[in-house]
Amino acid sequence: MFEFELTGADGRARAGVFRTPHAELLTPVFAPVGTAATVKALTPAQLHELGATLVLSNTYHLYLRPGDEVVRDLGGLHAFMHWPGPMLTDSGGFQVFSLAETRTIDDDGVTFKSHLDGSLHRFTPEKSIAIQENLGADIVMAFDECAPPLDRDYNRRALDRTHAWAERCVRAQTRRDQALFGIVQGGIFPDLREESARFLTALDLPGYAIGGLAVGETKQQMHATLEVVEPMLPAHKPRYLMGVGSPEDLVNGVARGIDIFDCVLPTRLARNGAALTRAGRLTMTNAQFARDPLPVEPGCACYCCAHFTRAYVRHLLQAKEILGATLLTIHNVHLMLTLMREMRAAILDQTFTQYAENFLAHYSSVEAAAAH
Amino acid sequence: MFEFELTGADGRARAGVFRTPHAELLTPVFAPVGTAATVKALTPAQLHELGATLVLSNTYHLYLRPGDEVVRDLGGLHAFMHWPGPMLTDSGGFQVFSLAETRTIDDDGVTFKSHLDGSLHRFTPEKSIAIQENLGADIVMAFDECAPPLDRDYNRRALDRTHAWAERCVRAQTRRDQALFGIVQGGIFPDLREESARFLTALDLPGYAIGGLAVGETKQQMHATLEVVEPMLPAHKPRYLMGVGSPEDLVNGVARGIDIFDCVLPTRLARNGAALTRAGRLTMTNAQFARDPLPVEPGCACYCCAHFTRAYVRHLLQAKEILGATLLTIHNVHLMLTLMREMRAAILDQTFTQYAENFLAHYSSVEAAAAH
Repeated sequence: MFEFELTGADGRARAGVFRTPHAELLTPVFAPVGTAATVKALTPAQLHELGATLVLSNTYHLYLRPGDEVVRDLGGLHAFMHWPGPMLTDSGGFQVFSLAETRTIDDDGVTFKSHLDGSLHRFTPEKSIAIQENLGADIVMAFDECAPPLDRDYNRRALDRTHAWAERCVRAQTRRDQALFGIVQGGIFPDLREESARFLTALDLPGYAIGGLAVGETKQQMHATLEVVEPMLPAHKPRYLMGVGSPEDLVNGVARGIDIFDCVLPTRLARNGAALTRAGRLTMTNAQFARDPLPVEPGCACYCCAHFTRAYVRHLLQAKEILGATLLTIHNVHLMLTLMREMRAAILDQTFTQYAENFLAHYSSVEAAAAH
Repeated sequence: MFEFELTGADGRARAGVFRTPHAELLTPVFAPVGTAATVKALTPAQLHELGATLVLSNTYHLYLRPGDEVVRDLGGLHAFMHWPGPMLTDSGGFQVFSLAETRTIDDDGVTFKSHLDGSLHRFTPEKSIAIQENLGADIVMAFDECAPPLDRDYNRRALDRTHAWAERCVRAQTRRDQALFGIVQGGIFPDLREESARFLTALDLPGYAIGGLAVGETKQQMHATLEVVEPMLPAHKPRYLMGVGSPEDLVNGVARGIDIFDCVLPTRLARNGAALTRAGRLTMTNAQFARDPLPVEPGCACYCCAHFTRAYVRHLLQAKEILGATLLTIHNVHLMLTLMREMRAAILDQTFTQYAENFLAHYSSVEAAAAH
């Protein structure tokens, strides 16, 4: 189990197959985020139709509600949310450090107040693994301390703890049907990243994540960090860039050897009325779309673009209809998954460099002009 | 076009086929409500999978937003919302009288303020027909004055206006591919209902609605009114009971010769976390369901009950996830449509009386005990 076979490469970009208990994952892969055991605004049937393969869920959220033991007693996360494919849970670390209130950190773990009701809780590496074992995802993450990427002192201190916690996670693991990924930290600092990569790869884990990015650094800093870390990671293990990203981030990440991505962006933007397109974002609530008979993205094959106009989608958003969020979520997730499939094919065809250049030449990271 | 063929009867209950430009409607039929050109929380694909055939949309809402001319310019309501099956629009009358602010009524029409932005508008019978012609539904409704069902004086005065307006609607109609239904009014007063039925049937319209019910009278008064009106309506025209109702109302309505129903109940209850079952309503947010591994309604074949537990549905509702509303909407609409199909089959089998008795014996109009 958890073999990772590289089936193609083009430059640093890789195409592979990762074997998990619930299916083979074709990489590079983007995982839509199902925070609370649901990818917001979609049924699992819709997600499956979109060609999603890997779904991420959040340990912190599910621990607080409905409780990981409830999920375990109902057959685990796959059964609970009716997602028969591969799943990944994070460690809860990032949410504890970003969402929870009044936390106190010591070498043993983190005590925090729930953002839901203020109740007091404690996560340790052992607790994070126990929760993730109750949830039952195929890929589970080591519990780490998340430091702001530009704060060298904090990253320096957090690194020792993150490494000690990774070792404790390995020792705490009792299930052999879950792949425990280590998380390379160290902010934007090459020496810290190198130290982290060296420490974690020595643990010989089935996969490695790059954490602490897309939370305040520039795109250039993110790319430079990926370029530092990537050569230090074993080629025959999958590499997961956590919490990233936009369409351009996916292309830039694959170009730098990343195999797995997740991000709330496509689903969150959709619920806020924004469409992702190959030209950049469109704010679908704009008055310019009020009578626009074109689909959200002309040429797109998704259910939203195949059947509905920009005018209709805008109407749904204006009327705060749930279907507006659903249709834009379908479109945005479809784009992300289509990009991943296209990139995989381009890598296997040895045309990835061209593909990436062409994509990035047409993509705008600011508001796009609507195609006609 | 608009032939109505009776294919079976059992007591007063009827099974028929109503030919519309977009398909043959098998009756009795329940129309889910798509107020703003979307049945809330469902895609048209999901609605189609549920076996929905007729969908209702609201003239008042679509006139205000996005505007009936926008809908017309985008190909009409069927194309706009991607519902290729039969559609029905109401006249806007009921919403003007129940939702709009500061309305003034005169013999020519109604002036009202939009509930959205306070802007001033005027509906007349001619305007209602013009809007409905822009929307393009298969069945359109005469513009009427809606009086509270227990207020005899108001019903007496409103009736003359409703009848005069019905005649003006007939004269205003320019499209021959829309069936204009008249609306029998008169509250709970048999003599007024009789007068209304006599006046409207003389216009020889392709169908008749019974209006002004389910808005304050008792179930007994509703049934008595149906029993008064039904024999006065021509047997070879479809009969539509507007805005009704609950599962028991559907059974009681079919038993009293009704062919068409619509109601927001199944979709609205779903968004409020309530499931309709054959035993009555279940409040799915109740703590008793927190670890319940059963489906919402054991034995139900809908997508929600086939794949998800009560515990999961409750979790989604607690977390205010859109999927909670979607799954319960699927379940509730599935129940309503299944009941209609079962009743039609029972009528054709001459077992409807038994079917209705059995259904009503098991149904509770208050909170049901959850089946195990």
